[in-house]
Amino acid sequence: MRDVRMRGFTRRTPLSDVLAALEADSKPLSAEPVSLGDCAGRVLAQELAAPRAVPPFARAAMDGFAVRGEDSFGASSFDPVILEVRGQALPGAPFAGTVGPGEAVRIMTGAPLPMGADAVAKAEICRTTTATTSELPKTVELLEAVAPEKHVGQVGEDVQQGEVLLRAGRRLRPQDVGLLASLGVTEVPCHRRPRVRLIVTGDELLAPGEVPQGSRIVDSNSPMLRALVARDGGLLDDYRLLPDDPAQIGAALSEPGPDVILVTGGSSVGAEDHAPVLLHKLGRLDFHGVTMRPASPSAGGRIGERWVFLLSGNPVSCLCAYEFFAGPTLRALGGRSRSWPHRTLRAKLARKIVSELGRTDYVRVALEDGLVLPLSTAGASILSSTVRAAGAVIVDRDLEGLAEGQEVEVLLYDEDPA
Amino acid sequence: MRDVRMRGFTRRTPLSDVLAALEADSKPLSAEPVSLGDCAGRVLAQELAAPRAVPPFARAAMDGFAVRGEDSFGASSFDPVILEVRGQALPGAPFAGTVGPGEAVRIMTGAPLPMGADAVAKAEICRTTTATTSELPKTVELLEAVAPEKHVGQVGEDVQQGEVLLRAGRRLRPQDVGLLASLGVTEVPCHRRPRVRLIVTGDELLAPGEVPQGSRIVDSNSPMLRALVARDGGLLDDYRLLPDDPAQIGAALSEPGPDVILVTGGSSVGAEDHAPVLLHKLGRLDFHGVTMRPASPSAGGRIGERWVFLLSGNPVSCLCAYEFFAGPTLRALGGRSRSWPHRTLRAKLARKIVSELGRTDYVRVALEDGLVLPLSTAGASILSSTVRAAGAVIVDRDLEGLAEGQEVEVLLYDEDPA
Repeated sequence: MRDVRMRGFTRRTPLSDVLAALEADSKPLSAEPVSLGDCAGRVLAQELAAPRAVPPFARAAMDGFAVRGEDSFGASSFDPVILEVRGQALPGAPFAGTVGPGEAVRIMTGAPLPMGADAVAKAEICRTTTATTSELPKTVELLEAVAPEKHVGQVGEDVQQGEVLLRAGRRLRPQDVGLLASLGVTEVPCHRRPRVRLIVTGDELLAPGEVPQGSRIVDSNSPMLRALVARDGGLLDDYRLLPDDPAQIGAALSEPGPDVILVTGGSSVGAEDHAPVLLHKLGRLDFHGVTMRPASPSAGGRIGERWVFLLSGNPVSCLCAYEFFAGPTLRALGGRSRSWPHRTLRAKLARKIVSELGRTDYVRVALEDGLVLPLSTAGASILSSTVRAAGAVIVDRDLEGLAEGQEVEVLLYDEDPA
Repeated sequence: MRDVRMRGFTRRTPLSDVLAALEADSKPLSAEPVSLGDCAGRVLAQELAAPRAVPPFARAAMDGFAVRGEDSFGASSFDPVILEVRGQALPGAPFAGTVGPGEAVRIMTGAPLPMGADAVAKAEICRTTTATTSELPKTVELLEAVAPEKHVGQVGEDVQQGEVLLRAGRRLRPQDVGLLASLGVTEVPCHRRPRVRLIVTGDELLAPGEVPQGSRIVDSNSPMLRALVARDGGLLDDYRLLPDDPAQIGAALSEPGPDVILVTGGSSVGAEDHAPVLLHKLGRLDFHGVTMRPASPSAGGRIGERWVFLLSGNPVSCLCAYEFFAGPTLRALGGRSRSWPHRTLRAKLARKIVSELGRTDYVRVALEDGLVLPLSTAGASILSSTVRAAGAVIVDRDLEGLAEGQEVEVLLYDEDPA
């Protein structure tokens, strides 16, 4: 490896090459059993077939009276059909007998349909004589005819036994979890969530929650990365704030445990930028220096199976490098889509954006009067630009910039719709 | 209150009236201090001004050499300017002296700019004689001129002291949390997250994780609602599976603690549908029966300050009622947007949707060949329709339906982009 420290990058790797290599290499992690209560939002590792039918028995789909449909033929409000009420069927207390000709059973939604009955006359078309709802009426008048099978949920109507319900790779929705519960499923095989170690390096840094003093500033990257890792389904269970000491950084890179290590600071070409050299020594430095702005000093590689991303200490570069390299990898390891997770919006540029051929730009933009306004910012350390911005526009490497009035896609920073 | 049990709804409340009343009544909950590490995704209850400037001192924005800009004028690779290297400035170890004319100090990104210097010559335009990066060179050759202020982050360049950074109502982004950390903020005033009690009623129900047996089925609503409440920022800390017993349901409604109570089952017009009567007795039943499909038997009201939503036991109705009534209320109580939280997509209908004037329909749809295909489903109990569907289309009450080929907006069920 060529040591670029204090000499600068003479050649950077094209962003598209880095992204293609990351995509080719990152496969979903192995499966683990996840309990029903924890599986919402997780990604199925195998297809899932129904172990039983839903509903497991024919049941009422409405409140009313279970009847033999043919008994009701010709019924109208002028000439109701009168049936004898033989009992009641509740979801928790089915009716044990059989409904014979001229008979009915009061039934509640979800209750098993009694033997003999083949339809449910909904409450709205039934007239009874009792004044209270707790007392069972002796007879019921049907004011309309009820076709056989009306308002009856048949066995397997919702789900048939053995039917493949959910494919591998499905990110489980709230309603998926409901359906799994109704099937009696207790555990679901999901891809493991990637475990993340965050190494923040810098002699000058104080831990988040401390107050900046003199030349010592607070690590602002770890709170940001913590939230991004959570968004992307990673488990950030190990945070280490280290001085610019190669021995300590090397030890933190080597120690087993995580699937992904994020290092912030010490990734560029300064004398104290030890991380790329260490990654090269301990494993494989796959890229260092990328044709993009910001985040061009980003680096990445592997130590064994472990992914290592060296993100700049500059907060905007750090955000940008995370979003381009670490974020998609984390999502892919967890079985999710690599795509940008942001909401997007298409609108026209209020002002041109200048870029350079061969370089991909990540430009913070505001939205004003329905137009996209590029924010001019001096440097990668201007974290507040990402706070003030509505989102980001990516200028492709094939372009020298984007013209005023051109329609662009904005990756919106806000999770919620406006 | 008119007791609708076993008589049916003769008059339903227009959906728009219910939604308008909910919106008028739901204000964000009070503020609570939230620690920096937990505030991502939470909603600011007050505006936040910067307690100090960022950066708090002038600092290098690049690795290289701190110089007096005027010394470099005329420098080129053919005719470099040679400066004497007086020392080194690191972020954690500032240079204590002053840079005089003809002098330079090696400097790393983020290090305080030494007295006397006014610019940073980046490493790429500097040539030094030492072979190793750890040894400080005696001199440095500048290959280009460096304008004063070049690559210097000025005091307050990112954030000025006292500047209002974040407005009340802001849902905190990952980068917001980073910026707050760099300002030395340790706690943030955020709206309280609504506490939710979930009451699931039904003699026939088994708890999620159990296996359905005979006429007993598993509560599929609570796992779904748990995930939806989490999505909408609520804290579901109390789940009660109760029989159809008015005394027990009444006690669970009365007991203080939650901001919102969700009841599933027992909300319709069946003899065992106790919840609406109980809500009327214990507090206020604001609506019962809504002009929509599914979820028409939904009800809601208040007991003191507490919101109570009676959702159908039918899983699709339950999902629909949650999405229309409970979801927006939970989000509003936590300070978030009431708007649908789903990703959306606009596409044309592959087939017409039939509805009824005066009724709002929540129609599950698939996406096929870029077209929106309404799923024909028999009833509200077909939870699998929401599993098979790509999303939902809402048919407004002013419409008798939607024509084939008409463009519609689909609320996508999947959180991730395709």
